[in-house]
Amino acid sequence: MKLILVRHGESEANFENYWTGWLDVDLTAKGIEQAKNAGKKIKTAGLSIDVAYESVLKRSIKTAQMILQEADARFVSEYKTWRLNERHYGALVGKNKDLIRKDFGAEQVKKWRRGFDEVPPLVKDNQFDRRYADLDPRLIPKGESLRMTSQRVIPLWQDQIVPDLMAERTVLVCGHGNSLRVLVQYLEKIPTNQVDQIDIPNATPMVYTFDSHLEISQKEIL
Amino acid sequence: MKLILVRHGESEANFENYWTGWLDVDLTAKGIEQAKNAGKKIKTAGLSIDVAYESVLKRSIKTAQMILQEADARFVSEYKTWRLNERHYGALVGKNKDLIRKDFGAEQVKKWRRGFDEVPPLVKDNQFDRRYADLDPRLIPKGESLRMTSQRVIPLWQDQIVPDLMAERTVLVCGHGNSLRVLVQYLEKIPTNQVDQIDIPNATPMVYTFDSHLEISQKEIL
Repeated sequence: MKLILVRHGESEANFENYWTGWLDVDLTAKGIEQAKNAGKKIKTAGLSIDVAYESVLKRSIKTAQMILQEADARFVSEYKTWRLNERHYGALVGKNKDLIRKDFGAEQVKKWRRGFDEVPPLVKDNQFDRRYADLDPRLIPKGESLRMTSQRVIPLWQDQIVPDLMAERTVLVCGHGNSLRVLVQYLEKIPTNQVDQIDIPNATPMVYTFDSHLEISQKEIL
Repeated sequence: MKLILVRHGESEANFENYWTGWLDVDLTAKGIEQAKNAGKKIKTAGLSIDVAYESVLKRSIKTAQMILQEADARFVSEYKTWRLNERHYGALVGKNKDLIRKDFGAEQVKKWRRGFDEVPPLVKDNQFDRRYADLDPRLIPKGESLRMTSQRVIPLWQDQIVPDLMAERTVLVCGHGNSLRVLVQYLEKIPTNQVDQIDIPNATPMVYTFDSHLEISQKEIL
């Protein structure tokens, strides 16, 4: 039972150093190359992907599609879900991280970025977007703590990824820094006060092997 | 309730005039442009795709992904299924159509191509391919008549596309000449002896609107 977690390749926002959250920014040319390389590594490792989960944001979707292409698995179904979206950074979205640090202090910014229960300043209204039209409006956040992110990521693990693993499918999950951080925290049973030590680099496949009780028997970084 | 049927763009086999069936040939550069244009037409028509069905062959997958990209619907889930594959042409696969016409006669080739019950010469063994590993081996054909193609396409309509339409999702189906021909035949209730008159051009969106009894209320070619 194998689970491959990959954060998207370099995005325009990683490059330009602002908060994105649910903003739908694109990959850079370097990000696309990183994604292709991740796919090649997965192929070289002899892994055969059977199903892919992606967020509804194009940096995750494009990364997954480059990986599937390079890993001879373009034909697997792609489930795209808001549950894998990046953490919603509320009113910080679109703001330059250095400027916000100047305004609010490095300590506050560090709390917002790495504390588990810290909620960023909220947006007043969530812009309507067609991709969230099917959701209970209460599910659409105005800003999330890491805990809130975890609470909407883990049901995807429980309801869809686990049944796939139990059926011995090799699962690719292409997510974001924080949606994967909370998943790793859950899988590795890391205390919430150590979640800031979990780092998820761009386009680097993390391969978990599980035993029949869904305990981790191996973890490998490609 | 709207269903958009699109045959893939020009493939290397369309261009070179040989039978492909389940061969996984790529789109030509022209085919990719045709697919993008199909997406633009769908966007201009004001259609909002909610879900996509594709075969497990890359000419269908790439066509769908180009359409989704151009029609602002990259975030919809993509279900890829062998049920939408091109008709399996048995031992004719990979053969040049003109050479086969010389060997077997134009009349026999016409029957193979357009008759409803004509089965092509069968292959002895079906090559193993990972993408069919989950299937009941009896489902993997050694060569199909159009009727056999219909019998494996229609369950996708009944079990997955209809529930999507009933939930008022706009459905994109990217298939192949014959997998779409048998679907059109079923939807439009065309007698099987007239199926040879159904022509499905490359990358041309056919938009069906249904009433609440799933009867066609409008058909539009974009």
